[in-house]
Amino acid sequence: MQLRFHPYTLQLRHTFTVSTYSRTTTPAMMVEVEEDGIVGYGEAAMPPYLGDTLESATSFLSQTDLSKYEYPAAFDDVLKDIDTIASGNHAAKAAIDIALHDWLGKKGGFAWYQAWGLDPSNTPLTTFTIGIESNNDILRQKVREADTFKVLKVKLGSENDRDIVRTIREVTDKPLRVDVNQGWKKKEKSLEMIEWLSTQGVELVEQPLPKEMIDDQAWLKERSPLPIIADEAVVRLSDIGEAVGIYDGINIKLMKCTGMHEAYKMILLARAFNLRVMLGCMTETSCAISAATQLSPLADYADLDGASLITNDPFVGATIHEGKLIMPAGFGIGVSPKQ
Amino acid sequence: MQLRFHPYTLQLRHTFTVSTYSRTTTPAMMVEVEEDGIVGYGEAAMPPYLGDTLESATSFLSQTDLSKYEYPAAFDDVLKDIDTIASGNHAAKAAIDIALHDWLGKKGGFAWYQAWGLDPSNTPLTTFTIGIESNNDILRQKVREADTFKVLKVKLGSENDRDIVRTIREVTDKPLRVDVNQGWKKKEKSLEMIEWLSTQGVELVEQPLPKEMIDDQAWLKERSPLPIIADEAVVRLSDIGEAVGIYDGINIKLMKCTGMHEAYKMILLARAFNLRVMLGCMTETSCAISAATQLSPLADYADLDGASLITNDPFVGATIHEGKLIMPAGFGIGVSPKQ
Repeated sequence: MQLRFHPYTLQLRHTFTVSTYSRTTTPAMMVEVEEDGIVGYGEAAMPPYLGDTLESATSFLSQTDLSKYEYPAAFDDVLKDIDTIASGNHAAKAAIDIALHDWLGKKGGFAWYQAWGLDPSNTPLTTFTIGIESNNDILRQKVREADTFKVLKVKLGSENDRDIVRTIREVTDKPLRVDVNQGWKKKEKSLEMIEWLSTQGVELVEQPLPKEMIDDQAWLKERSPLPIIADEAVVRLSDIGEAVGIYDGINIKLMKCTGMHEAYKMILLARAFNLRVMLGCMTETSCAISAATQLSPLADYADLDGASLITNDPFVGATIHEGKLIMPAGFGIGVSPKQ
Repeated sequence: MQLRFHPYTLQLRHTFTVSTYSRTTTPAMMVEVEEDGIVGYGEAAMPPYLGDTLESATSFLSQTDLSKYEYPAAFDDVLKDIDTIASGNHAAKAAIDIALHDWLGKKGGFAWYQAWGLDPSNTPLTTFTIGIESNNDILRQKVREADTFKVLKVKLGSENDRDIVRTIREVTDKPLRVDVNQGWKKKEKSLEMIEWLSTQGVELVEQPLPKEMIDDQAWLKERSPLPIIADEAVVRLSDIGEAVGIYDGINIKLMKCTGMHEAYKMILLARAFNLRVMLGCMTETSCAISAATQLSPLADYADLDGASLITNDPFVGATIHEGKLIMPAGFGIGVSPKQ
């Protein structure tokens, strides 16, 4: 099996601001695997805060030799082996995982939702994410642009959190999900905010406190009227145990967790621990979004708007219709290059 | 989707004796699902000690209406729904699960080891089970008949356990795995036996004490020189948490755990808890054995000799070559009716 890769710069529709930084592009590495005339597509989307770069991905992928595996479709073993090439590099590992899944499904003639026994019509609604925006006119405009989405995700964690929520509430009464990205620093203030948010039609709060504040988070969970979902605190399968009793659920992202196979295992494990499951994303093309959409009938919450946030998507795959994810029709992860 | 079923009596090659009873046949219910001209095969093997009967299986299967599901291949939801028809009935539930997996793989053109990303050459050795036998000549003969197997499983739990092991050791020096089926009643005596067994080339001990003796089992695990595997103590996914710290591993059987989908989840969960995984079986046809073989590259230990123990196997599927499981070549679970 051959492995090819090339860098690609994702152009963001809007400058994206979370509690820690802003940006207008996301570097990505597009990956292809090929055998028997069949091409599988994968993608590593690398927002800078995760630590992966084009250089690190190039280095990692250059060390990955798929031709050495007699049976590369045996991803359970192959991915374990690739995982040992270097630590980190989660996005590059995810790109290989996604491409192998796409290849195997296309080779075998099945889509992944089928192999997992999922009903393709059972996809969830996805949120559309509203980044932090200090200009209220622009903020209102962004909310209006998200007109077709039924649920919004709002990034908080700045000084004017209540102001942001009040401004959004001037424009819409849709359910909101709040993502703080570790932006709050005090448990008491967090609780006060969550109690207020629960009166504002907010359904859940993601990662309110820094991931290191474990005792404070446990304190907060015990008192919070809203479910609290771990994001930064749970990266891979091995982190799930630590979330039990501390969080109500976890946000699983392919780029964080090294791909579809580990994500599927994480969902099953989270369910066994009675944790809720959110499927999230970075700014990504329809390649990684289609991969996540295959899993989405298993999720309680989806935040898979990544391809809607970019202007130069090179793929056709999963779509969103009136806020609901639409399972792509094709085999594998269901993507093909845009003609 | 149509569901059909008919009773079938498995004829045992030898009278089978464990610590609690003997028998010469096993009642089974053969299940077929059909849609789009494709037939999926499943099987409920019902050794009497599990509590399922032909009557209970008939009642359960008669209440199962697959035609009501728009998308019956969405087994993740469909099996959850079927699970609520009645409690228990694990073998009948497994029969439906296996048939749905077989149908979906045949419809989609893939085998289940592929969907799980497993290398089909990576199947484990399987043990061959030697039932309790008080006649030492017959015992020696049984061991000789298992000539092609590389590892034997020995049922203990009677008064003459040491005698049985010594008799087997007269004939072979193959590694042994011991299954007590809850037959020992005292922790101190169990430890003494396990210490002796560890000097006799025994690799592990399965379910030495009654499953209710949790504290005694924890005591035993702490001191045992051999890994202790739970069988009766762990039936389904929800039981795994209780095995942590008490046992070193679990024996997963499709007929116990309601089928392939739950078995796969159990393997992932067991791994997350650092429990070893054995895949076991009842006396079964090649149908259920082939289903388990699809999962077998994930197992540390396999005890999938069930089809070797019967004389009237109606299927062709997984085989055993020199003690190693051979993944069947076909789609789905890889079985077809014997011509």
